[in-house]
Amino acid sequence: MVIVMKAKATRQTINKITKRLEDMSITVHETIGSNYSILGLIGDTTMLSKEQLESYDDVEKVIRVQHPFKLANRLFHPEDTVVKVGDTTVGGDTVTVMAGPCSVETEEQVIQIAMDVKEAGATILRGGAFKPRSSPYSFQGLGEEGLKLLKKAKEATGLPIVSEAICLDTIELVAEYADIIQIGARNMQNFALLKKAGLTKKPILLKRGLSATIEEWLMAAEYIMAGGNKDVILCERGIRTYETYTRNTLDLSAVPVIKEISHLPIIVDPSHATGKWKMVSPLSKGALAVGADGLMIEVHNDPINALCDGGQSLKPSKFKKLMEELGIYMN
Amino acid sequence: MVIVMKAKATRQTINKITKRLEDMSITVHETIGSNYSILGLIGDTTMLSKEQLESYDDVEKVIRVQHPFKLANRLFHPEDTVVKVGDTTVGGDTVTVMAGPCSVETEEQVIQIAMDVKEAGATILRGGAFKPRSSPYSFQGLGEEGLKLLKKAKEATGLPIVSEAICLDTIELVAEYADIIQIGARNMQNFALLKKAGLTKKPILLKRGLSATIEEWLMAAEYIMAGGNKDVILCERGIRTYETYTRNTLDLSAVPVIKEISHLPIIVDPSHATGKWKMVSPLSKGALAVGADGLMIEVHNDPINALCDGGQSLKPSKFKKLMEELGIYMN
Amino acid sequence: MVIVMKAKATRQTINKITKRLEDMSITVHETIGSNYSILGLIGDTTMLSKEQLESYDDVEKVIRVQHPFKLANRLFHPEDTVVKVGDTTVGGDTVTVMAGPCSVETEEQVIQIAMDVKEAGATILRGGAFKPRSSPYSFQGLGEEGLKLLKKAKEATGLPIVSEAICLDTIELVAEYADIIQIGARNMQNFALLKKAGLTKKPILLKRGLSATIEEWLMAAEYIMAGGNKDVILCERGIRTYETYTRNTLDLSAVPVIKEISHLPIIVDPSHATGKWKMVSPLSKGALAVGADGLMIEVHNDPINALCDGGQSLKPSKFKKLMEELGIYMN
Amino acid sequence: MVIVMKAKATRQTINKITKRLEDMSITVHETIGSNYSILGLIGDTTMLSKEQLESYDDVEKVIRVQHPFKLANRLFHPEDTVVKVGDTTVGGDTVTVMAGPCSVETEEQVIQIAMDVKEAGATILRGGAFKPRSSPYSFQGLGEEGLKLLKKAKEATGLPIVSEAICLDTIELVAEYADIIQIGARNMQNFALLKKAGLTKKPILLKRGLSATIEEWLMAAEYIMAGGNKDVILCERGIRTYETYTRNTLDLSAVPVIKEISHLPIIVDPSHATGKWKMVSPLSKGALAVGADGLMIEVHNDPINALCDGGQSLKPSKFKKLMEELGIYMN
Repeated sequence: MVIVMKAKATRQTINKITKRLEDMSITVHETIGSNYSILGLIGDTTMLSKEQLESYDDVEKVIRVQHPFKLANRLFHPEDTVVKVGDTTVGGDTVTVMAGPCSVETEEQVIQIAMDVKEAGATILRGGAFKPRSSPYSFQGLGEEGLKLLKKAKEATGLPIVSEAICLDTIELVAEYADIIQIGARNMQNFALLKKAGLTKKPILLKRGLSATIEEWLMAAEYIMAGGNKDVILCERGIRTYETYTRNTLDLSAVPVIKEISHLPIIVDPSHATGKWKMVSPLSKGALAVGADGLMIEVHNDPINALCDGGQSLKPSKFKKLMEELGIYMN
Repeated sequence: MVIVMKAKATRQTINKITKRLEDMSITVHETIGSNYSILGLIGDTTMLSKEQLESYDDVEKVIRVQHPFKLANRLFHPEDTVVKVGDTTVGGDTVTVMAGPCSVETEEQVIQIAMDVKEAGATILRGGAFKPRSSPYSFQGLGEEGLKLLKKAKEATGLPIVSEAICLDTIELVAEYADIIQIGARNMQNFALLKKAGLTKKPILLKRGLSATIEEWLMAAEYIMAGGNKDVILCERGIRTYETYTRNTLDLSAVPVIKEISHLPIIVDPSHATGKWKMVSPLSKGALAVGADGLMIEVHNDPINALCDGGQSLKPSKFKKLMEELGIYMN
Repeated sequence: MVIVMKAKATRQTINKITKRLEDMSITVHETIGSNYSILGLIGDTTMLSKEQLESYDDVEKVIRVQHPFKLANRLFHPEDTVVKVGDTTVGGDTVTVMAGPCSVETEEQVIQIAMDVKEAGATILRGGAFKPRSSPYSFQGLGEEGLKLLKKAKEATGLPIVSEAICLDTIELVAEYADIIQIGARNMQNFALLKKAGLTKKPILLKRGLSATIEEWLMAAEYIMAGGNKDVILCERGIRTYETYTRNTLDLSAVPVIKEISHLPIIVDPSHATGKWKMVSPLSKGALAVGADGLMIEVHNDPINALCDGGQSLKPSKFKKLMEELGIYMN
Repeated sequence: MVIVMKAKATRQTINKITKRLEDMSITVHETIGSNYSILGLIGDTTMLSKEQLESYDDVEKVIRVQHPFKLANRLFHPEDTVVKVGDTTVGGDTVTVMAGPCSVETEEQVIQIAMDVKEAGATILRGGAFKPRSSPYSFQGLGEEGLKLLKKAKEATGLPIVSEAICLDTIELVAEYADIIQIGARNMQNFALLKKAGLTKKPILLKRGLSATIEEWLMAAEYIMAGGNKDVILCERGIRTYETYTRNTLDLSAVPVIKEISHLPIIVDPSHATGKWKMVSPLSKGALAVGADGLMIEVHNDPINALCDGGQSLKPSKFKKLMEELGIYMN
């Protein structure tokens, strides 16, 4: 961490700050200039508050040098994390494809889609039982009934399940049925939920918030890991920008960045990012080409009558074609 | 709502869509062009899913004409909502100033600040007991102990209390102690929390999400109102943009927009928006000048030692000076 | 400037970088840590390229401490710049209102509006002769004919003129007729135009680019000043964000930031920022309340038939009313 | 185009608007609702101004249904445009790789790099002679001397040249030496330059502006094409978002969008988008996987001493390795 002091900073203030930091076992090196002076801090600055130091009148600004996350940091954990999910794994050399309907609707629907996506090559079934919807008047998911249907689909196909938990009251319920608990973009900084996710024994799929920086995203992962759950899978799903042609802007550059600074696996969800099924195919290819560990894709047998997000769902036949085309990107 | 059909759209599809909409008591008017055709929909389209209609191959795009919120919509509720809080009110002709520390730390601290801000003219005391922090290693608030201290400050000064609820498990606790329950920016789309807030009997201060559109923000208010709680106070606190000089970009234009399309009161929080105490004074004036119903300002007697967000807190003396300068904007 | 070296950085590389910097009369102080080392640079780092230093493999990142602009920097020029325009001034204690039509259309139109805005209290007449339009099929302005009409309006009212120059070929022409040359948002980083503006003898009104950071904006001002023209007036006109309810998001927090780090005057254009005449009045008040040195407002006697941007123009009667209401913000 | 009228809109106003539109050969269909009425417009609405129509008091909003560009619109030109450049082509079935130094520095440098990139498989040489730099104190390029060196490199290798024109005064000079004229991101809405580019006989490489929507970008292409020059190559180079880890956010979803709505070829520049050479390789693969017609990559034999943008340049050996890895994406 670097503290930039104003030129007018008094010796007294510098000493006061230095003393305070030394009390926290941090070493301070001074570089005195004519317009600014620089204090270089050596030691564990993870716990230091940038804002608090900036509240000194004589401090111009404080610059963080080290990432504020530790458990998620590749610097302290150089090998890739590989997450075990049932008989399969996410991360490492595996390319994982999670596919299924946005929301679970009927037994027939979810079992049919599960069989279709399995046949096409998907290794994990996705499906929403609890749905976060921007309107209180929209379909909010089947709840536990949906989880039961997912379980039947799992029994029918052997595919492990990923399903979203949207609140403290139901995360344990989801943990009971699902093999991976998804935390959605809008809950990425629902810290109470993250803490509870850290206490569960199931892997967590952590979607990036709509306007989360990569650092904030990894800090959210840190919350879960600090609670004791090391099995976090990141999922890039588009960020909010000024461009309105696609629903969000898929940030594929986040994939190599995550690979550089963290050891956690990262998959990509092109369905939610774009909101348009036509764009799922090219962006799936792009995601694997930049190095993602997998994909999360919405598949629905009857998009027009889907209770949620039909516009971004692939029909099983199109998904099958996509999986064939993805072959060359999977090695 | 307007549905734009592709030129190649068949009569059959148009009839199918029309039939489906008529079954929902919506009237459809066709305008046939050479490159596109337009279906104009008349009736209550609040419940229609834009995405679902866009999943038809022959649909080019769907454009919402009416706002998707009803209870928060000025069109159906032309008079300003005035929220009663203890003996005071928020909205209407009143200009409200909520002030206090970011987080409650000690009895002495919170009572002293409460007395200071009251003397300077604030009418509501703010203070955090449960703190949403981006790092799991940061101070997370005193919890119920903090609420108890706020209550003592209320007893000492008579000021009503606003404090944040960050999860389902503690919102009832906050409702017990506080006069207004705050829902923070990061929880603006925590729909489970919004639903529960709709069932409480206390007014809700709903902060705008970091990247929430004005429409999404009002839809979040709609969630609360749909649950039966009509006392929602909106709070603009800065949005995330590419500009990094200030922590966020305070969107003061949101104030006249809200005034035009909604009847709910709106206040402004310049402390969190900028993260810099020096900017609180000019932006407070700006907020009242554009027509905000009030302000939320962080005040701390010892910013340098504050456990949270010291950098954006005013000292009581500076707050007092600001309140004097705000006089001309308060009429 | 601070250079963060990776832990694996060799003594050799550090020495090489240090040598290179010392050759440029920069002093280097080392702070050696376990995960990173920090080089603190003292001296004039304005000319150093952050990117070039970052191309060393052993460099983690380079952080600029000092602003890269000098002539526009309040640090080296503490007093406010006051720009003389005809008999009036911009900046300092004056509040300037520039008003007039988006584009000059006819002699009758521009003279009538000029008389109206003068009567209402405007001190400078704005009007476009060369119009930057996003479509090649839109009206592109009257060109020199428009400048001649502006001159007639100046003769009729005594108001100095501000008009936009959109290219190298016509900036001298604009300089001949106008008292202030405007450089538009889309040309804020048209460096060839900025250089030429630096050679003219007329004050320059420099609009902020749609996605320009405050630092980039001041660097654009630096281009003009480095050419010898110190009379730069900044104009905040809204930035591009994800919010689409208003055309752009007016960044009023830029006003106190500019006041802190630069000595140049800054005015605000609420008409272009919002694109809606209804929002011009509240945001004009907000702009003066946060400390702007003035406003730029579009006024048109017949907005519905305006050849450009009618939707954001005030009618003269509404402008008059606004000017009366602005009285209390002008002292 | 759809005009949404307020409920209170009078018959008189609707008739007035309808009359005005019919005078422009546009047919108007009315759909009357209780809260809003809708006017559906049929005919060529390209020339209509959305803003002007929105200036009527009784108009709620105006929604554009058709894209405002015509010449760049795939609707009216279904086949892919293939641009001829010397003996090679851009677009169609070809995958083009343009490579070379950010700026031309010396004869030795540019010839050596040209030979290296040719050997590795690049088909076009890039190199800047006129450089747009955010600081007036940075190296601004060698000017015509740089163009002469590029010509020598072309003579030595046979590679056609792409180089940037930054102003009206030098675009003809660039046209004389280069085979493709580049218009940079910061000049994307320098309409005077676009018009002049429309009059040259050389293909134009049009970079996307830092905060340009896809529609604005295609409107910039429309400016060039409307001037008579149909040979426009689009180049995605990252957009400005809140994320600061990479310099800009590469918007790879723009590639399939452009492919859907336009017939122009599109290439991708990962070097400028990220500003980090380490990310060039994965994003190059991603760009080809999503369907781009090619890449533009910075290669420098001595990045550390490059006069510009060294941090994002690949060394020739790394570029060669990348080209080998790109093989599977090129078919």
